[in-house]
Amino acid sequence: MQEDIIEKLIEQFRSLPGVGYKTAQRYAFSIIEGKDERAKRFADAIIDAKSKIKFCKECGNFTDKDICSICENRNKKIICVVKEPKDILAMEKVKSFDGVYHVLFGTISPLENKGPDDIKIKELLHRVQKDNVEEVIMATNPDVEGDATAMYIAKILKPLGVKVTRLAQGIAMGSELEYADEVTLSKALEARREIN
Amino acid sequence: MQEDIIEKLIEQFRSLPGVGYKTAQRYAFSIIEGKDERAKRFADAIIDAKSKIKFCKECGNFTDKDICSICENRNKKIICVVKEPKDILAMEKVKSFDGVYHVLFGTISPLENKGPDDIKIKELLHRVQKDNVEEVIMATNPDVEGDATAMYIAKILKPLGVKVTRLAQGIAMGSELEYADEVTLSKALEARREIN
Repeated sequence: MQEDIIEKLIEQFRSLPGVGYKTAQRYAFSIIEGKDERAKRFADAIIDAKSKIKFCKECGNFTDKDICSICENRNKKIICVVKEPKDILAMEKVKSFDGVYHVLFGTISPLENKGPDDIKIKELLHRVQKDNVEEVIMATNPDVEGDATAMYIAKILKPLGVKVTRLAQGIAMGSELEYADEVTLSKALEARREIN
Repeated sequence: MQEDIIEKLIEQFRSLPGVGYKTAQRYAFSIIEGKDERAKRFADAIIDAKSKIKFCKECGNFTDKDICSICENRNKKIICVVKEPKDILAMEKVKSFDGVYHVLFGTISPLENKGPDDIKIKELLHRVQKDNVEEVIMATNPDVEGDATAMYIAKILKPLGVKVTRLAQGIAMGSELEYADEVTLSKALEARREIN
């Protein structure tokens, strides 16, 4: 039945984050109504990405080699610690950052039964000692787990004489004060800076 | 470069209707972070749908055979005329409709340089005569092109003694009057019915 074939494709699109039935259907029709080569390119891109992309052995970033291009070319004295590989892509928009990364693959989260040993903290410690790291920038998400993880790692690293910093928290550029939540506002107030 | 492989996948997702860069990126990461089998199933579903789904030779519906299951099993005396194959899926939610369909593959649209000969009107005429059709329901979209196409087809078919009807236009069930546009409201007013 043609319906089954279409339904199967719709089902696959539904498995993407935030995609409901109607949207998945629209995507499926766009494939069916599109050109043959487009469908082929699409399918190839999925298989390619899934089969060729692995994690950098040093930092955990996405890579198609053993060591990613960031680890190979940049300043190893500064490590920016993130929760997931995709956070690196976000951070990389800041063109001025010249250091390397470390992916924790999660955060400490008692609710999800995740302790320090369940994320890549040991590996971070190892890198800090091996490369004589000068600064570790904690770029975990600004939420309870992200904060707790940052605090935990800071406590371990400080005795080693490493500077541990955290991304500033406050109101986002271009946002409106009216819509900022109270936690963000209180953090922004706490971290207020003098205007010179 | 790993970035290129990921970018290629993001690009494919961006080609879907209404998908911007951020959303495409989220979809791509969900593939990369997912299981191998899931990526394979996804790619297969795309290739399958594209290679097996064709158009019914009779009505233009999606099918994996020559003639679709609706044309094979239902009442050919009533034809519901739609703009695109996917409109059939929408109409099919109305379980009470027992007739068949006819896909125009477009509407008359002077702006897009589309005249009556550019859409499947000849084929509709042929079916109406061949099957002794009693009623043609115009289910083209309720916009200028859809209305014009419905009028044009009605003018051709009426001399043949065929009843031509149009889906009722008015305010949508469950919507709020406050948000209805003025064209919809004026159509709804025009087509008002007495309450018995």
